Amino acid sequence: MQQHDGPLARLRRGHEDLVLDLLRRGGPLSRAELGAQCGLSRTTLYDIVGALVANGAVVASAPDAAQRRRGRPVERLALNPEAGQAIGIDLARRAVHVAAVNVAHEVVGTASRPHGPELDLAGRIALAEELVGGLAGDSLRLAALSAIGVGAVGPVASAPGTGGAPALISASLSRRFGVPVLVDNNTRLAALAESVWGAATDARDVLYLRLSHGVGGGLVVDGALHRGAHGLSGEFGHISVDPGGRRCECGGTGCLETVASVGAVLERYRAAGGAAADIADVTSAARAGEPRAAEAVAAVGHHVGAALAAVCNAVGPGTVVIGGELAAAGEALTGPVREALTAGLMPVSRPLVDLRPAALGEVGAALGGIALVLHRSPLLSRYPNRETGEEA
Amino acid sequence: MQQHDGPLARLRRGHEDLVLDLLRRGGPLSRAELGAQCGLSRTTLYDIVGALVANGAVVASAPDAAQRRRGRPVERLALNPEAGQAIGIDLARRAVHVAAVNVAHEVVGTASRPHGPELDLAGRIALAEELVGGLAGDSLRLAALSAIGVGAVGPVASAPGTGGAPALISASLSRRFGVPVLVDNNTRLAALAESVWGAATDARDVLYLRLSHGVGGGLVVDGALHRGAHGLSGEFGHISVDPGGRRCECGGTGCLETVASVGAVLERYRAAGGAAADIADVTSAARAGEPRAAEAVAAVGHHVGAALAAVCNAVGPGTVVIGGELAAAGEALTGPVREALTAGLMPVSRPLVDLRPAALGEVGAALGGIALVLHRSPLLSRYPNRETGEEA
Repeated sequence: MQQHDGPLARLRRGHEDLVLDLLRRGGPLSRAELGAQCGLSRTTLYDIVGALVANGAVVASAPDAAQRRRGRPVERLALNPEAGQAIGIDLARRAVHVAAVNVAHEVVGTASRPHGPELDLAGRIALAEELVGGLAGDSLRLAALSAIGVGAVGPVASAPGTGGAPALISASLSRRFGVPVLVDNNTRLAALAESVWGAATDARDVLYLRLSHGVGGGLVVDGALHRGAHGLSGEFGHISVDPGGRRCECGGTGCLETVASVGAVLERYRAAGGAAADIADVTSAARAGEPRAAEAVAAVGHHVGAALAAVCNAVGPGTVVIGGELAAAGEALTGPVREALTAGLMPVSRPLVDLRPAALGEVGAALGGIALVLHRSPLLSRYPNRETGEEA
Repeated sequence: MQQHDGPLARLRRGHEDLVLDLLRRGGPLSRAELGAQCGLSRTTLYDIVGALVANGAVVASAPDAAQRRRGRPVERLALNPEAGQAIGIDLARRAVHVAAVNVAHEVVGTASRPHGPELDLAGRIALAEELVGGLAGDSLRLAALSAIGVGAVGPVASAPGTGGAPALISASLSRRFGVPVLVDNNTRLAALAESVWGAATDARDVLYLRLSHGVGGGLVVDGALHRGAHGLSGEFGHISVDPGGRRCECGGTGCLETVASVGAVLERYRAAGGAAADIADVTSAARAGEPRAAEAVAAVGHHVGAALAAVCNAVGPGTVVIGGELAAAGEALTGPVREALTAGLMPVSRPLVDLRPAALGEVGAALGGIALVLHRSPLLSRYPNRETGEEA
């Protein structure tokens, strides 16, 4: 799972990808057939194949009876049908979500369990292990597991081994399941998932904004998840939209999160005399045109649109995806967002930004964890095919 | 210059890179020596080498006398010392700049010529051709030219052949010089140049802001120039910083450019009773502590810092580089920028953003054109070595 960036390491990775790709398309092949198709020297090919067999990605099958009779037993190589299973986990603030895919990159199971915000990280990890255990069975064999991708709350630096929550998560899960574990910010992973399996599968440059208890998001840049220099990208919730506004949990002032979180909207709605047990009451009232709910949601939309405009002018995404509980308000939210976004965009950019609701719901970040490991592990090869990718 | 993204094309590109790299490090090598070092089959290696000889990147040298006498004439392969020369051109609003590098990626010449803003694109292209002709000589042989990278004013879409100014520039220069021509926005190219040769050679995620007659910039994301979905990234000058402010040339309102351009600063300074023939008078007065100049520059700094904070929260660059004529004000500008940037950043990000002045000056975008073609052309191989890269 380490990244090797030298030209020889890149070349070796390319060779591995090529061999895996030929086996995926061409079914079982002999070494001679592989050699004829891949253009590698015998020495290089045997070296690559040996490593792929050793790490379990490829299996060598016994020669069949017909070949034996002709006295020319030729071993054939094939993808290991039990390799390449992957699990995604989202250790979110109020719930743990898990999802699993098989070697064909089909989603074979998902599970979610809510918990109180007081549950600590170790408790969330234990809950995730329990949910994964519940998914295990015919379609997910833990012995065939190749990698786990995990979404965690808060900043996750790019460099591995920098300690903190990501290191604890990684150590704990890789000890339990014996496979590599990659960790990234869960909201960024939801952004990746929307671009791989969700609302933006047709786009290479995507901005994903999540309006939930917290406000955050992620950027997909030219098809890849963008982390930023210190793992601190996608903090849209901490763009200041009201310099004289209230103090944010982050320590800043007037952050978007202080006016656009679930809690801020509920508070605004109740202060205006609205009655709501939870945010779903507000968003459905806004959809139904109830004036106080519509106003509370529209106020969020204007702030969101203004913040998005600044980011879009800088980054130039063609697609903006909005998710989280507030997105359930539909056009009552996206109308005002679109209006403020349009006002703040360079006129030349206005027709070029496509605003869409998120498609993946609460398991988005867990699916993003899978996308992360599919993207990074040579064992699992490239991104799932966008045409055949399952939606959750 | 087309991009081929299939696995076989990527692999071939990797093979070419490897062969070029081995020749660059190991001097002239026989085919047998190359084969032993690169791990390719004889067939593949001969195919790759044949293509590199055909396109002029590699030359086959005659066997030397000692070998002849021993009766074993072995042809040796070497990088073509006359290949791999590249030219960068900046067709800016008020001047044309050109720069050239040799096969060793050393800058062998630069030239600039100011012109009036009324000079049309065809006129600027003709001026560029004249300046390139003036550079031609012993160190730049036009016959050995491999590619030209051009910076142009305004949006440049990612997809080639989309018409407009980029298509005109590309057609005109490739007809004149007979080589591939790549075009990108000139301010984005200046961003790339700062990351390859300038103030941010140690950084992979860079935000470059240029405060000049216009205000713009570019993002380098994980070491590569970021374009955005429609070639519209880096438009920092059109982030609204004053919603009730004045109309911008772009059609928007209160854009950063309306308060932070050279023209806006001169106007503000003169309105306050300051006397300045040009912006250099204002920036040097601000450096000297003259109150009206310092105030005019500080006002820019506060707006710039606030806009940068929004972008940094979203994108997470570790390094912010400020260039353009206004950067000459030094700490009189960067002090207020830093103050407003810090106030607007998430507290956790505050110690992680490094603010620096640009290092490359007016020829930056032309150097960025070279970086663009060095990065894209298999002939010219990878980016210049950052340790040995020349600074302009």
